[in-house]
Amino acid sequence: MTTASLIAPTIDDIRAAQKRIHGAVERTPTRHSDTLSRITGADVHLKFENLQYTASFKERGALNKLLTLSEAEQKSGVAAMSAGNHAQGVAYHAGRLGIPATIVMPEGTPFTKVKHTKDFGARVVVEGATLTEATARALQIARDEGLTFVHPYDDPAVIAGQGVAALELLDEVPDLDLVVAPVGGGGLLSGTAVAVKGVRPAARVVGAEPAAADDAARSFHEGGLVPMTDPATLADGLRAQLSERTFAHIRRYADDIVTVSEDEIVLAMRALWEALKVVVEPSAAVAYAAIRAGKTQSRGLKVGVILTGGNVDLDRLPWAANLP
Amino acid sequence: MTTASLIAPTIDDIRAAQKRIHGAVERTPTRHSDTLSRITGADVHLKFENLQYTASFKERGALNKLLTLSEAEQKSGVAAMSAGNHAQGVAYHAGRLGIPATIVMPEGTPFTKVKHTKDFGARVVVEGATLTEATARALQIARDEGLTFVHPYDDPAVIAGQGVAALELLDEVPDLDLVVAPVGGGGLLSGTAVAVKGVRPAARVVGAEPAAADDAARSFHEGGLVPMTDPATLADGLRAQLSERTFAHIRRYADDIVTVSEDEIVLAMRALWEALKVVVEPSAAVAYAAIRAGKTQSRGLKVGVILTGGNVDLDRLPWAANLP
Repeated sequence: MTTASLIAPTIDDIRAAQKRIHGAVERTPTRHSDTLSRITGADVHLKFENLQYTASFKERGALNKLLTLSEAEQKSGVAAMSAGNHAQGVAYHAGRLGIPATIVMPEGTPFTKVKHTKDFGARVVVEGATLTEATARALQIARDEGLTFVHPYDDPAVIAGQGVAALELLDEVPDLDLVVAPVGGGGLLSGTAVAVKGVRPAARVVGAEPAAADDAARSFHEGGLVPMTDPATLADGLRAQLSERTFAHIRRYADDIVTVSEDEIVLAMRALWEALKVVVEPSAAVAYAAIRAGKTQSRGLKVGVILTGGNVDLDRLPWAANLP
Repeated sequence: MTTASLIAPTIDDIRAAQKRIHGAVERTPTRHSDTLSRITGADVHLKFENLQYTASFKERGALNKLLTLSEAEQKSGVAAMSAGNHAQGVAYHAGRLGIPATIVMPEGTPFTKVKHTKDFGARVVVEGATLTEATARALQIARDEGLTFVHPYDDPAVIAGQGVAALELLDEVPDLDLVVAPVGGGGLLSGTAVAVKGVRPAARVVGAEPAAADDAARSFHEGGLVPMTDPATLADGLRAQLSERTFAHIRRYADDIVTVSEDEIVLAMRALWEALKVVVEPSAAVAYAAIRAGKTQSRGLKVGVILTGGNVDLDRLPWAANLP
């Protein structure tokens, strides 16, 4: 495939996704924060994707993909791999739509995440020591059983769905100078970058990534895809690596990718809880961490931040004294 | 004073307070919760007063009081006593308005609460082993220095301000069958009851109180003020006792007061965090705890719940294994 053929979705695809998923996912609130603005010297507006029903933006892409399947494909069912939010997004909407769903979750996935996914009606297979192994297993099940594999990010329909959050954000705050989103596999950042450049070309789009999982930052700055499988970061939603497709989008549409340390993530997460009184997961704090740590050149600018999710184990908060 | 003379504020006073404080406090969001509705069998609508700037409804009453002072009184300054949210509410708005404020906080008040209050420009005096002792000290300072004492609840202007939250809630969801609010000193419940009965007389108003601090429930059911000073409950915002004034309002306008155990408070608090992805303090979970525990006869009804505040020590969450 050429790079050009990898550039899907376009802004029109994201607009179509917006219509397609309308009413079945939350139009989450956008709020300005005086406190975070004072701390950072930027004018900070936050998009609360943690307030989706399954508490993350992942529903958007999953649902858009499910709704673009043929009737026969919907009837046969879907397979997916995820240790968390994508699993719940696929399971919830597949269950709602009556589409059979099989979700492979890696060994070591917390019991409550497995339970939530099962509660939505999905068949859950816990297998694979790593994301890579679990993905291989899910692909095998999909082949063996004739299921459509719903990739967490390497799919134009999924990327288009994720981009809808940025359309809503710009609808609420049209004159943003900068939009910052976390990057793991790159689905959200790809959709966000296409959406922002399509609606407001003057705005910059910056991805924020844990330094401990910096394949996207390295790929972006070195100009070629740098592989990195299953890195260790507290931001468990960002352990995936870019695909050729997401890399092509990010290379073309994003302006920069910056990295933050694990400590910066924890401090930002706690600051968000304290200042906004919201529960966000470590991955969701990475974008604000980058702004807070001065990595995004955002002083004096009107900045939009996507708070991606709120699924966190309340018994194991990263600042608690009893952490292992 | 006769009981009749104690009935102030009226609904007109609350409407006047609404105009007076408009724009200087948040019109906090109201949200429906599918999850909590499914759990409780009620149609649950929540008012997020934890999203006020100082993270509690207390700002409303404090500001309304400050704005009803004469110019001379404002110039002389105010005194208040509070271990938490009232302190921040008074300090923040006094600071904003250029009114000198002295806040007495009891010994043992967490350092961060003292610091926040000082950061708003207030003079903080840490004195008194109990709320009662600290109140006595604050009254003495007010007398000695010619300051106006801003009571946390035993004041018509404060009660009127607190009632504005219920006006906003009914504005968003006009056909509520039931409104549940926590009760400590009774300021919020008094204002809420007057507001609800003034706007929608058909709706019931129920106060929810920790069983470990049940002076309001006992007073309500026994028909006379039952004193109880400084009880021990996790819901630290609800340790105050009713005054003659709040008791008179609650007796006349509230339909019931129910109690919940400490365990029920912790379970409700955690459920709110998990389902809504918001940070609420133990006191703010008491109203939902009563619904969740089946104390409010709310099955099948459209219920409004005031989530009063979000100031909680993230290092000492009540479900954490490392609690002392």
